[in-house]
Amino acid sequence: MPTVLVLNGPNLNLLGLREPELYGTATLADIEAQCHAVAARHGLTADFRQSNHEGDLVDAVHEARTRAAAVVINAAGYSHTSVALRDALATADMPIVEVHLTNIHRREPYRHRSFVSEVADALICGAGAHGYSLALTHVSHLLEKGAAA
Amino acid sequence: MPTVLVLNGPNLNLLGLREPELYGTATLADIEAQCHAVAARHGLTADFRQSNHEGDLVDAVHEARTRAAAVVINAAGYSHTSVALRDALATADMPIVEVHLTNIHRREPYRHRSFVSEVADALICGAGAHGYSLALTHVSHLLEKGAAA
Amino acid sequence: MPTVLVLNGPNLNLLGLREPELYGTATLADIEAQCHAVAARHGLTADFRQSNHEGDLVDAVHEARTRAAAVVINAAGYSHTSVALRDALATADMPIVEVHLTNIHRREPYRHRSFVSEVADALICGAGAHGYSLALTHVSHLLEKGAAA
Amino acid sequence: MPTVLVLNGPNLNLLGLREPELYGTATLADIEAQCHAVAARHGLTADFRQSNHEGDLVDAVHEARTRAAAVVINAAGYSHTSVALRDALATADMPIVEVHLTNIHRREPYRHRSFVSEVADALICGAGAHGYSLALTHVSHLLEKGAAA
Amino acid sequence: MPTVLVLNGPNLNLLGLREPELYGTATLADIEAQCHAVAARHGLTADFRQSNHEGDLVDAVHEARTRAAAVVINAAGYSHTSVALRDALATADMPIVEVHLTNIHRREPYRHRSFVSEVADALICGAGAHGYSLALTHVSHLLEKGAAA
Amino acid sequence: MPTVLVLNGPNLNLLGLREPELYGTATLADIEAQCHAVAARHGLTADFRQSNHEGDLVDAVHEARTRAAAVVINAAGYSHTSVALRDALATADMPIVEVHLTNIHRREPYRHRSFVSEVADALICGAGAHGYSLALTHVSHLLEKGAAA
Amino acid sequence: MPTVLVLNGPNLNLLGLREPELYGTATLADIEAQCHAVAARHGLTADFRQSNHEGDLVDAVHEARTRAAAVVINAAGYSHTSVALRDALATADMPIVEVHLTNIHRREPYRHRSFVSEVADALICGAGAHGYSLALTHVSHLLEKGAAA
Amino acid sequence: MPTVLVLNGPNLNLLGLREPELYGTATLADIEAQCHAVAARHGLTADFRQSNHEGDLVDAVHEARTRAAAVVINAAGYSHTSVALRDALATADMPIVEVHLTNIHRREPYRHRSFVSEVADALICGAGAHGYSLALTHVSHLLEKGAAA
Amino acid sequence: MPTVLVLNGPNLNLLGLREPELYGTATLADIEAQCHAVAARHGLTADFRQSNHEGDLVDAVHEARTRAAAVVINAAGYSHTSVALRDALATADMPIVEVHLTNIHRREPYRHRSFVSEVADALICGAGAHGYSLALTHVSHLLEKGAAA
Amino acid sequence: MPTVLVLNGPNLNLLGLREPELYGTATLADIEAQCHAVAARHGLTADFRQSNHEGDLVDAVHEARTRAAAVVINAAGYSHTSVALRDALATADMPIVEVHLTNIHRREPYRHRSFVSEVADALICGAGAHGYSLALTHVSHLLEKGAAA
Amino acid sequence: MPTVLVLNGPNLNLLGLREPELYGTATLADIEAQCHAVAARHGLTADFRQSNHEGDLVDAVHEARTRAAAVVINAAGYSHTSVALRDALATADMPIVEVHLTNIHRREPYRHRSFVSEVADALICGAGAHGYSLALTHVSHLLEKGAAA
Amino acid sequence: MPTVLVLNGPNLNLLGLREPELYGTATLADIEAQCHAVAARHGLTADFRQSNHEGDLVDAVHEARTRAAAVVINAAGYSHTSVALRDALATADMPIVEVHLTNIHRREPYRHRSFVSEVADALICGAGAHGYSLALTHVSHLLEKGAAA
Repeated sequence: MPTVLVLNGPNLNLLGLREPELYGTATLADIEAQCHAVAARHGLTADFRQSNHEGDLVDAVHEARTRAAAVVINAAGYSHTSVALRDALATADMPIVEVHLTNIHRREPYRHRSFVSEVADALICGAGAHGYSLALTHVSHLLEKGAAA
Repeated sequence: MPTVLVLNGPNLNLLGLREPELYGTATLADIEAQCHAVAARHGLTADFRQSNHEGDLVDAVHEARTRAAAVVINAAGYSHTSVALRDALATADMPIVEVHLTNIHRREPYRHRSFVSEVADALICGAGAHGYSLALTHVSHLLEKGAAA
Repeated sequence: MPTVLVLNGPNLNLLGLREPELYGTATLADIEAQCHAVAARHGLTADFRQSNHEGDLVDAVHEARTRAAAVVINAAGYSHTSVALRDALATADMPIVEVHLTNIHRREPYRHRSFVSEVADALICGAGAHGYSLALTHVSHLLEKGAAA
Repeated sequence: MPTVLVLNGPNLNLLGLREPELYGTATLADIEAQCHAVAARHGLTADFRQSNHEGDLVDAVHEARTRAAAVVINAAGYSHTSVALRDALATADMPIVEVHLTNIHRREPYRHRSFVSEVADALICGAGAHGYSLALTHVSHLLEKGAAA
Repeated sequence: MPTVLVLNGPNLNLLGLREPELYGTATLADIEAQCHAVAARHGLTADFRQSNHEGDLVDAVHEARTRAAAVVINAAGYSHTSVALRDALATADMPIVEVHLTNIHRREPYRHRSFVSEVADALICGAGAHGYSLALTHVSHLLEKGAAA
Repeated sequence: MPTVLVLNGPNLNLLGLREPELYGTATLADIEAQCHAVAARHGLTADFRQSNHEGDLVDAVHEARTRAAAVVINAAGYSHTSVALRDALATADMPIVEVHLTNIHRREPYRHRSFVSEVADALICGAGAHGYSLALTHVSHLLEKGAAA
Repeated sequence: MPTVLVLNGPNLNLLGLREPELYGTATLADIEAQCHAVAARHGLTADFRQSNHEGDLVDAVHEARTRAAAVVINAAGYSHTSVALRDALATADMPIVEVHLTNIHRREPYRHRSFVSEVADALICGAGAHGYSLALTHVSHLLEKGAAA
Repeated sequence: MPTVLVLNGPNLNLLGLREPELYGTATLADIEAQCHAVAARHGLTADFRQSNHEGDLVDAVHEARTRAAAVVINAAGYSHTSVALRDALATADMPIVEVHLTNIHRREPYRHRSFVSEVADALICGAGAHGYSLALTHVSHLLEKGAAA
Repeated sequence: MPTVLVLNGPNLNLLGLREPELYGTATLADIEAQCHAVAARHGLTADFRQSNHEGDLVDAVHEARTRAAAVVINAAGYSHTSVALRDALATADMPIVEVHLTNIHRREPYRHRSFVSEVADALICGAGAHGYSLALTHVSHLLEKGAAA
Repeated sequence: MPTVLVLNGPNLNLLGLREPELYGTATLADIEAQCHAVAARHGLTADFRQSNHEGDLVDAVHEARTRAAAVVINAAGYSHTSVALRDALATADMPIVEVHLTNIHRREPYRHRSFVSEVADALICGAGAHGYSLALTHVSHLLEKGAAA
Repeated sequence: MPTVLVLNGPNLNLLGLREPELYGTATLADIEAQCHAVAARHGLTADFRQSNHEGDLVDAVHEARTRAAAVVINAAGYSHTSVALRDALATADMPIVEVHLTNIHRREPYRHRSFVSEVADALICGAGAHGYSLALTHVSHLLEKGAAA
Repeated sequence: MPTVLVLNGPNLNLLGLREPELYGTATLADIEAQCHAVAARHGLTADFRQSNHEGDLVDAVHEARTRAAAVVINAAGYSHTSVALRDALATADMPIVEVHLTNIHRREPYRHRSFVSEVADALICGAGAHGYSLALTHVSHLLEKGAAA
């Protein structure tokens, strides 16, 4: 079963515990469980991780280059500031789907720009925790298309 | 069965016929068929329309206010220029999901800003024709959540 | 009796039905009735129209060039995006008064700029439905001054 | 009879004496007389003042907080530069109508932005001396509506 | 005889009737006659159209994709605001020549940028009605070059 | 006992009377009393003043050059617009501490820039009325350090 | 005794050793000792930390959510670049006071903007090492006010 | 003997006492004496004034409209912020020469723009106290030219 | 026979030898020959020149003031940087037509602005070497119109 | 007798012949004569030059480093575009006075910035041909002051 | 033998493995070997390190302050975003040479600005792996010059 | 022996004579001698030139197209303003290395952008006169690599 790295950035470990009106009530563990379920349904394995450290996210992407078939990434705050992460993703020749819980285009102007978007195939934002399911579904779609090609 | 307006903006009638390296080979008829299938699977009816006229899109949104339960919209070129369409959508008290075939954040700077995003709940871009399926799936998710509330 | 074109742009057909905290509870029909009354009081006829189509607004201004003595215009969303409408108004050698229900300078930055303002004699905004009465009163004032000159 | 402060900013004491092609031939005394007449017609008293000093305008607004029922203000040059005046107006819980003799949006870019607009209910510009009458009429309309509520 | 779509945008129907010091005294009918003559001289047919509706211009370009060999376009006000029209032209794999009666670079800053320019082969502006003749001459030159290749 | 000029700018005379959710419930008299107490505790005299006039603030700073040992200044609205006041402070060779009741960096963008900051040694904002006590404490600290040097 | 997290960002470990004309001669150990003394005086415990790693600062703020009653933060270079840290602080429902040794508004333009300021209650900058004392004093003031409420 | 208003803005009363490396050692009294001498040499009377109040400067310009033949103005800090003063000068139909002691274009960016420059005939900056002599010499030249015409 | 100065700027001497995919394969000598032919056909003489020196181009325009009846200019790189050349052209009271081989609006942003455009009557760009023929044709048209007037 | 280089930039050779409403009717020869007269009166020799070539102006400044005691420069169009000329002037350790015939701050925005101003001691603009006399007078003043020091 | 810290930022561990058309085929190990060789040739020891963690880079620079004689740094993605790293380098009183494999000025605009450049003595970019050799050669040159002084 | 054009721009003829704290004490003759030595060591001939004329630099690059194997260029002030020079270099299909004596990124903002950088392979700045040696060394490296390919 191909592995999909589901990579979560800073502060996402607090999901469900903070600002629920903004980020919803699902915890990160809830989302992880949901990801495993959706991945399984699509014949995929989800390698689900979270870190508050930019360098850890870069490291994780590097690892994924050989161990994973695709990346689903919610880089949270680092989306808007990390050229390092963008460059790491650019080295990964596989489907990349960017996820944000909130619609970042309805928030502060500095959240409108994502360095991740420059290298992601697709972007899903504002769909809350459900966005991860959509992202995995899309990854599955892309991997099937790739396999068929 | 609740109706979802699937509204398509300018030039989308030419899908599959133009710039396939950018927009893919699916025609708008293919996408319409796919939308009817996905909608049916979720117990929804898709009201699928396309127009090259900004005013027609505004009119369609007005109609949807009473006839539809949600809107999936790919406003294409008008996304970036139409305050009128944004204001029309703002009057519709229902789920709105914005779709773009391409990842608009990897294209010209004037495509990075979408007036539709200001009033859409969620945004899915760069997922090609498959993005419509994801959008309808998300609409279904939102309507179920709303019904459960 | 001289005719004043009272021209209304996109989404104004929904007045009273949408976002009343922003736009008030008067419907467009209420405003039309009020305009006829005020116009009559000033010895004027109001030709009251609304369209969601930019091209219709341009056409209406073209017609007004020969049929009307003045224009009161609330171009709504097109105020901020339509060079075409601005150019149409520039061809009309008669008093032009711009109206907005809300104070557009207290809203999003892209509403602070109006192409209509470049060619309007006067601007009245933030006075709600009453702004139409003020605009017609001012048109009457200008026509009298012009007649006296 | 409720009092309306009609407050005039710098250089307006020279009205009629300077740049008549821009500001018209009415003197400030003419406008004052007109304001008294219009106010009386609406059952209002106009407290008409002018100063070239920013601090005086701030002081006058402070006084109005307890002595007046509404403010009509043409802050002239200070409109574009005075945060102090804007903050003073923000402390006054009453109708505020901003007036400019000229259409400031057709003049130099630095006149397009008015700090007064941020706190004014309505804005009337480009209507010349007649704009004061419209402003008082609107104040009367607002006070009646408030009284009726 | 190959057909050239000569497409005219908003307000050009008023040519000769408005602002002659800016746009000259030739009417659109005069220009149409001139275009037919020049086209004939080059062995071409001119399909001459005008609309004030952005959507109509998009539709006309779509039609031209199969019926015409080239496009000469004066999109007037829509040049500066229409991504939809730009995208329509991008789908047409044929010579496109942009025309403006005035030198748009000597006018307001918002006229300096044309979305049409992004997809036009050549731009001719400031040559008045004569610019249409130059454009048709250039189209003929390009078609001959293409035929010779 | 060294004197500290505690200088207050426009609208601060209304403290406690206006927008308490923003500025708190302490009146300027309360703050003055608090300043006298804190100053006394540090062996200082507070010369507490307020004016709505930019020129008065400039004059007060000029006086302070010979009469005071330090300046605590809350220039309110003039902070953001007065080069004159900035230049006056630049002539005073003594500790200058800038105070704002609110955190100006969480408010409108034009409040993010303070000309006073260019010449102040320290800035304390968002600490409400307590900020004056902190400022006086810091002035005392600086004067002691200076005396010790 | 309530705990206050006193969190120090990158390069502050070198205080006293580098650029003393800019940052003073106090070492971080000196400041820590001073913080413990001031905290004790106010019945508080200071949890004093420093890290050069953005992720460590985020982690420390997360911990503080349950273990501390307030945060005093000098995020140094990360103040100007870290959305991640800003978002971490936004999850902490407690008093936050931002400190900078220098007056950041008198330095390079990129130091004028602090993401921390967006979520801090108060900001103290330019007061050198003494700023930490002022910050702790203010935290104590806020905690007492909160306790009294 | 025609009178020339020599008008000085904020902080110029401190000349010679502050920042001599920037503004020189001449006091304002020295400059006044020099102006009287130079004016006399040209058959002119200098009406030399200084104020720290923007409104006073506006008032002085208004007076000059009937009492003076020309204005030499060093508006200091108000040069960069006062639309009111600019508008006052615009009402004065006489030669206006702007003076700055320092070369404002070598200082902070906000000093590069002067509202006074928009309405001044000539600008002399960076010539120190000698600049007043040059300005009066130029005023004399302009008045002679005007008289000769 | 009236003379038309056909003035070519820097690097155009290398035409045909460099970047043919951008600039075409015609050499400058080819274009010169073509210009002489077209000019002759219109009863004109072409004075064809090229220089890599900005000052030479200025000098050539000065000469043309008395010796030529019109200017066709392709200022190449100097178009975007030379105020001197723009000012030289502004002194020439005759038809000026600006030519660029490529469509400068589809290239780097700094090529979108041409100082020459500010003073040229017409602009033809993107028409390759053929653009010179169009320019001479238009010059002839303008001279005939002028002669007829 | 010390020599002053009076250096004139592009198009100034046409003075009096072009745009007299902007630049006056004095020819460059008139100004040269005037400069010789004024210089003589101050015991100076004027080395008066003009070139349309940026490099010539740089060369002339280089020469002046050893041959002249001061520079009066009207760099015309190169003022706004030449870093090379600015750098040349920066190498000259002597008084530099910048002159412009017109008030460049009342013209196009790109004329508001002068690279020459960055290195000039004083700037005189808008004084027409008389500005050269003022500049030489100021140079004489500076040389005397220097000699006295 | 003096030590030179050769510090490599994020993603450089993947050199040779990713995007060879952009970054070349040399691996980081190849570059390390080359650095040791070049350093030895100059009588230097290279302390060669790489990290994907911003904090690690800051820590390494801190260490270098006492252990190394110079720094060669390729901060990769952190060059453009890290004020923390810039501040760390500012504390190191020794030669600093910045290296980039690619010419960052030919890439995305956000790569044009490097915070490292603000504190580096020299910058070498676009020279590929060879740039490290040039940097070490230059460090050697600087250390010799320093030793000779 | 292959020739390398070493091209020097404006004011570099004064090296060693001006601003030594900025540009060092080496004269251009010193640098030329050093270049000949370094070139010889690498089996290259240096064709060393300097001009203050933009056009001369363009001409020299044109010549180099056939006579030289590479270009080392320090365009000094023209780096930041010359599109003409950039375009000339773009026609030269050979290695181009840009040199600046100072680190242009630590100087005025307008020196941060170099048009030469757009077309140079490598950039070396801030290495003083030694930078020329590094540049020639790199040219040699590139030529060897090219020969080996």
